[in-house]
Amino acid sequence: MFRDRLRNTRLWDRIVDAAEAARLITDGMTVGMSGFTRAGEAKAVPLALAERARRDPLKITLMTGASLGHNLDSTLTEAHVIGRRMPFQSDPVLRRAINAGDVMFVDQHLSETVEFLRSGQLAPVDVAVVEATAITEGGGIVPTTSVGNSASFAVLAPKVIVEINLSQPEALEGLHDIYIPAARPSREAIPIVAPDSRIGVPFIPIPPEKIAAIVVTQSSDSDSAVEASDAETDAIAWHLTEFLLHEVRRGRLTEKLLPLQAGIGTIANAVLQSFTETPFHDLTMYSEVLQDSTFDLMDAGKLGFASGSSMTLSTQKHRRVLSEIEHYKRRLILRPQEISNHPEVIRRLGIIAINTALEFDIYGNVNSTHVGGTQMMNGIGGSGDFARNAHMSIFVTKSLAKNGTISRVVPMVSHVDHTEHDVDILVTEIGLADLRGLAPRERAEVIVANCVHPIYRETLADYYRRALLRGGHTPHLLEEALSWHDALRRTGKMLP
Amino acid sequence: MFRDRLRNTRLWDRIVDAAEAARLITDGMTVGMSGFTRAGEAKAVPLALAERARRDPLKITLMTGASLGHNLDSTLTEAHVIGRRMPFQSDPVLRRAINAGDVMFVDQHLSETVEFLRSGQLAPVDVAVVEATAITEGGGIVPTTSVGNSASFAVLAPKVIVEINLSQPEALEGLHDIYIPAARPSREAIPIVAPDSRIGVPFIPIPPEKIAAIVVTQSSDSDSAVEASDAETDAIAWHLTEFLLHEVRRGRLTEKLLPLQAGIGTIANAVLQSFTETPFHDLTMYSEVLQDSTFDLMDAGKLGFASGSSMTLSTQKHRRVLSEIEHYKRRLILRPQEISNHPEVIRRLGIIAINTALEFDIYGNVNSTHVGGTQMMNGIGGSGDFARNAHMSIFVTKSLAKNGTISRVVPMVSHVDHTEHDVDILVTEIGLADLRGLAPRERAEVIVANCVHPIYRETLADYYRRALLRGGHTPHLLEEALSWHDALRRTGKMLP
Repeated sequence: MFRDRLRNTRLWDRIVDAAEAARLITDGMTVGMSGFTRAGEAKAVPLALAERARRDPLKITLMTGASLGHNLDSTLTEAHVIGRRMPFQSDPVLRRAINAGDVMFVDQHLSETVEFLRSGQLAPVDVAVVEATAITEGGGIVPTTSVGNSASFAVLAPKVIVEINLSQPEALEGLHDIYIPAARPSREAIPIVAPDSRIGVPFIPIPPEKIAAIVVTQSSDSDSAVEASDAETDAIAWHLTEFLLHEVRRGRLTEKLLPLQAGIGTIANAVLQSFTETPFHDLTMYSEVLQDSTFDLMDAGKLGFASGSSMTLSTQKHRRVLSEIEHYKRRLILRPQEISNHPEVIRRLGIIAINTALEFDIYGNVNSTHVGGTQMMNGIGGSGDFARNAHMSIFVTKSLAKNGTISRVVPMVSHVDHTEHDVDILVTEIGLADLRGLAPRERAEVIVANCVHPIYRETLADYYRRALLRGGHTPHLLEEALSWHDALRRTGKMLP
Repeated sequence: MFRDRLRNTRLWDRIVDAAEAARLITDGMTVGMSGFTRAGEAKAVPLALAERARRDPLKITLMTGASLGHNLDSTLTEAHVIGRRMPFQSDPVLRRAINAGDVMFVDQHLSETVEFLRSGQLAPVDVAVVEATAITEGGGIVPTTSVGNSASFAVLAPKVIVEINLSQPEALEGLHDIYIPAARPSREAIPIVAPDSRIGVPFIPIPPEKIAAIVVTQSSDSDSAVEASDAETDAIAWHLTEFLLHEVRRGRLTEKLLPLQAGIGTIANAVLQSFTETPFHDLTMYSEVLQDSTFDLMDAGKLGFASGSSMTLSTQKHRRVLSEIEHYKRRLILRPQEISNHPEVIRRLGIIAINTALEFDIYGNVNSTHVGGTQMMNGIGGSGDFARNAHMSIFVTKSLAKNGTISRVVPMVSHVDHTEHDVDILVTEIGLADLRGLAPRERAEVIVANCVHPIYRETLADYYRRALLRGGHTPHLLEEALSWHDALRRTGKMLP
């Protein structure tokens, strides 16, 4: 088996155990690890590092693609290893540390991290730790179920630790398309013209001598945390489908739609899943994370091709997709997140982008990250890369949270991640607001009428009416605009 | 003269006076007019339309490139012609009508308007009105001092009115580079790899039969409203220059820097002007508006090439540049604003973007548009196109306004146009905050220490200290976060 997995035989003497590999990481270093939405993260070296840190404290800056599986962020946080973390996380223990100010979290657009590294605008990566399916004869690293930032981390770092994961099928080789833009100012166009454009090589090309250690592992990826659809996600999906069918009838879209992006999470997954029941056909995806719904759509004959940066699947789907990866492979590409989320490609292809809002306001500003304006949830992720550059930027959310004590439609969002300029369509289970070409006052009318839960509607309408009396392009009562959030903090609910 | 200006002789019979041309515009239409930052707007037809509307009321949706000169927006507003306006304006009378809710203003990223038109997501343009230097034998329209959205308006509209402006020198021909991306999904890369890349044709290519009327005019562009530099803009320029020199010393930039963008206005113009006194050389610009400073830098031998969408100059500079346009022309390109501001090109070239903030907060969120959170000033313009995709996104502002009754650095901005994710460097006359790679709490420390005016510093530091006690990734006191703006509204000043 090793002959296939580690084809550069001169590297065989680099095989060490995780503890020894982890010794390459020392206090104060910046470490770039693989892993994107709980897929393809290095699994052994981070644990060995946490283990060592319990005896011999150290702190690092940890960069990844996005979130890690196997509770690695929890384990590393509890071992006090993480001083600084970027560009995304979704871990409950780490989140608490971030909100307590114990970990400095830099919440970045997922397309941008390696751009800043490449131009020296972030501290350089000292060590890259990358999970691999195999290492080629030339020393090329074949990623596993995600690419994330692994390619640029490995290219930029002076030392690379590779974890060869025997549980990842060898047939993953050929799935990846590794392309890294040149340093400025002599950069060419990225030649992707469709989701299935292959423009790079199927491995991360680095000189083999940079591979400082190789660790053999065999635990599989964590399963996705996506929940089943429910009556409300079904209603959201229904509103959105009706709207898209209307666009088709108006001749603004065909039944092939345009390449789809869906953010991670239950609602976006449910929306996409519902497309199996629609007249849409020959669909494509140009997205970041490919979830269960991607494969459901393929199995239903609806989806022809999907490009992403990772595959994050439920237990059942995970087993089946990986065992039949040869079957799916010709209709899949995994790319570096810089490319899956690149403004250039997203604007060119004309993506229909579906992302989840934590809350939105009567003018269509969206908060994706901060509960009550102060507490970080996960991070902006790729939502900004897609929303800004999409053909159509859609945000979905349920109208209520926490048994109705929270309205997700508020007078003013407590934190802005996506401004009114970047939000075209809002959908809750109550209805859909089409904001295209509308001025703020018109946006408020349609959002209050269509998206707010009835138990909050009159209170919100009343806020807007009173704000109108004061005038302005975007009327607000500043002394009251954030009062719903403040009441929630003080009393546990937004309204008396 | 006409032989040179109107070279398709079959079009000679389309010459009419402005009133007759304006009759092609009727109530309820969407009209796309040329004009970008007070340069190259159609000058006669809008006046004739306003004149007619005083006797015979009508309302239109008016789209332009950006702001218009000759107080046209005032005149049209006073004649109640404008029902809806997009994507930018900077007119005091129109602004009042927008803030009173009499005109629906759709404030858009300048790169996006024609993308939405092309895909049918905005009501179609019925008539385009475009100022021209000349019409070629084939019917191609040669723009004047701006391109803006004129090319796509003319291509998309069924009828085009051309104003041939005899005061615009014939030598402007050859300055423009007209390139329009194809409709999706079959779009190719935009092949610009440097500011001087020419990728299109020097005129707007439309079938001559679409030209429904031609009006001959001769009034020149309005002069720029940019003010002279002062001690504070000099200090801002000094801080920024010192910072860029530091980046050069650290090897992160060369003395050629990277292509520069500077937003319209006094401060950005002053910053750029100050580069004449620095070691920087062989500079280039990839910007939207080219102001006096562009030509000062060229005259000083500092700037090799400038790409923009318009030229907006002071009286003196205007006369000189236009009379010597042959001299400057080989170092200038004017492009459609979709291309000058295109995310694809901006990300590829790696722009150093310098834009003006109306206010920013302790976490680096920027408000570019709304005074006191509700009153529209001008619009977001191209600042978002550049800030999001730049190599380095810089915002500049004076620390105080209105005799110190307003601090431009506040606890929480009253409206967000650019989120913390898109803001790298903040500069006031007090100092510079380098936010790259910092978490929100670190951002607050450096912003409060470096950018706030001393008369507000302790109050702002006190807000942050008290917010910290409540914790969170982005600590705030929601009940107090907008209180400075509310006090300003009630008492005329932010602090007691």
